[in-house]
Amino acid sequence: MKKHILVVPGDGIGQEVTAVGKKVLEKIAEKFGHEFTYDEALIGHVAIEATGEPLPAETLEKMRASDAILFGAVGHIKYDNDPHAKVRPEQGLLKMRKELGLYANLRPIKLFDELLEASSIKPEILKGADILFFRELTGDVYFGKRERIEDGNSAYDTMIYSKYEVERIARKAFEAAMTRGKKLMSVDKANVLESSRLWRETVQAIAPEYPEVEVTHQFVDSCAMMLIKDPKQFDVVVTGNLFGDILTDEASQIAGSMGMLASASVGDSTGVYEPIHGSAHDIAGKGIANPMASVLSAALLLDISFGLKDEANVIINAVDQVLKAGFRTGDIATKDTPKDMILGTDAIGEEILN
Amino acid sequence: MKKHILVVPGDGIGQEVTAVGKKVLEKIAEKFGHEFTYDEALIGHVAIEATGEPLPAETLEKMRASDAILFGAVGHIKYDNDPHAKVRPEQGLLKMRKELGLYANLRPIKLFDELLEASSIKPEILKGADILFFRELTGDVYFGKRERIEDGNSAYDTMIYSKYEVERIARKAFEAAMTRGKKLMSVDKANVLESSRLWRETVQAIAPEYPEVEVTHQFVDSCAMMLIKDPKQFDVVVTGNLFGDILTDEASQIAGSMGMLASASVGDSTGVYEPIHGSAHDIAGKGIANPMASVLSAALLLDISFGLKDEANVIINAVDQVLKAGFRTGDIATKDTPKDMILGTDAIGEEILN
Ligand SMILES: CC(C)[C@H](C(=O)O)[C@@H](O)C(=O)O
Ligand SMILES: CC(C)[C@H](C(=O)O)[C@@H](O)C(=O)O
Repeated sequence: MKKHILVVPGDGIGQEVTAVGKKVLEKIAEKFGHEFTYDEALIGHVAIEATGEPLPAETLEKMRASDAILFGAVGHIKYDNDPHAKVRPEQGLLKMRKELGLYANLRPIKLFDELLEASSIKPEILKGADILFFRELTGDVYFGKRERIEDGNSAYDTMIYSKYEVERIARKAFEAAMTRGKKLMSVDKANVLESSRLWRETVQAIAPEYPEVEVTHQFVDSCAMMLIKDPKQFDVVVTGNLFGDILTDEASQIAGSMGMLASASVGDSTGVYEPIHGSAHDIAGKGIANPMASVLSAALLLDISFGLKDEANVIINAVDQVLKAGFRTGDIATKDTPKDMILGTDAIGEEILN
Repeated sequence: MKKHILVVPGDGIGQEVTAVGKKVLEKIAEKFGHEFTYDEALIGHVAIEATGEPLPAETLEKMRASDAILFGAVGHIKYDNDPHAKVRPEQGLLKMRKELGLYANLRPIKLFDELLEASSIKPEILKGADILFFRELTGDVYFGKRERIEDGNSAYDTMIYSKYEVERIARKAFEAAMTRGKKLMSVDKANVLESSRLWRETVQAIAPEYPEVEVTHQFVDSCAMMLIKDPKQFDVVVTGNLFGDILTDEASQIAGSMGMLASASVGDSTGVYEPIHGSAHDIAGKGIANPMASVLSAALLLDISFGLKDEANVIINAVDQVLKAGFRTGDIATKDTPKDMILGTDAIGEEILN
């Protein structure tokens, strides 16, 4: 198979972990006889430094020309505590999502058995949990109108959804549920929000098209509680952009660490595959970041964008083998992990590649 | 002390648990020689059924005339799945909060040692966790303009904050931090939202008034993750209405069960004390609801609205004794709890009263 992959490492540990993800793709191509070509592009803080823009036109062009994108992270502490910054790394991320029409963000939450002990949650509560989140990614309060008013003394953001936006993400979630446990939970705050009431009635209207899928509706506060209390009751979850942002970060704890979680953002054209962890500037440049989320993002890329299921499984198994052999990065080590089994980013990358 | 307390049980299990909370107040009055008078009023679904209004004018009048309010819960499944309902129980709750100026919602999260095993989270992660949330309660997307547009095919809500709203809740949180661990975490989504950037800059501007307090700012997604990963790192948390709704429900799992958590809503006049659990219609009327959140709400009422710390501690100790004696309600029982130690609402209420 001939494919063109764009690598966009972005900021912080994005650089380190994406390098490992790319190596894994190269290895797979070699092993299975695929012809993958690569290009690289800037986004986020590194793009602002180089060009003044968080998403330079050149990057967007390269993205549109790609068959799939392996993405790192964006963000920098410099902007976080400066509420007045006009240009911000995150603008690049949001613009990319909007421009490429990446309305569906898939976040599979599944625990490798070897990591049962790495989570704060009890093993017996976790064992067998397997959740697939569909987070809507191009609507909601992320893209509604926002501004300062009253001489800067008030500020608002607009949480807004249109029916067609809810329909298309809900359909993707229903389709996925059909191939899994046939359970779909839609999460909203319909007891307060009008946009949530639109969300709920739209999902309700689609449900009869999938009579085999058991649909439930939950308020976001209640869902945040249930995820910890009993994660095994979930199968597929569909929710809006903001609620999805919060709930999937929370749910990362079900998988032991954010360092293990990959995501796929898909929609009308090319797909973006990225760890759900951010740029993590506190550990950037130290060579200790867990690259497995990027490696598993590469697996998702092969699976979803190229339909290469066998290749994806080879990667997932390689990660599993490395964990079974006892190797860990700092974020997934427990007090029982021998010191010499705790490896850095590149070293654990080498183990995965072997 | 002479005080007038309004009891507002509301919907579902609100009825059952508030009855126990009230009995505890009566017992305390008797024991300490206070003269508490009581009245009762309707809110939510039961108020709609009786008067057509979720917050009848009579209820609001009685609330204004009270020294403190012991509150149950509002909500009914009937409205939840009907996105078109014009009148909803929750409107009564929100209107009460706004009309009474209850802008500060305090939610203490603390685990009774006896319940270490009742949580999904590992005991060693939980032990010693003690968090006080300040949730802003009269602003945000709960009270901004909302409507259907484009022939009902789109809907929006407005997430809005003004500086003075952030200032007054932040000050309360800083004051509380001074009496505790002197750590304050402010939670927002300032990397995306303008209202969050206003929030963050306002908290930053107040911080120098409390030089002893160590202030950190976290994004809400990251905070949702940290609460489970390492709850012990938190002291006081201040956040907006929507993020507070989600994070405190999630954090309830730190305390083993929502059935254990009380909250205080205070501001300009009378205070409202209520469990953070909702109306829970699935178990309403069965006599199995855990009344301890209402009992602990009564303790908060005495402490915060009347300044009766000793009386409040008597209640907290009584709950602790009942737990130490091994009594449980269903929600906090573990597989090791003997069947005959699992009591219903009234029976465990009697144990607390003894
Ligand atoms: C960096 C930030 C804008 C982003 C988001 O909120 O979407 C991130 O948290 C994510 O989940 O991809
Ligand atoms: C019932 C609902 C409107 C309410 C809220 O969201 O504020 C509840 O969840 C709460 O936390 O008190």
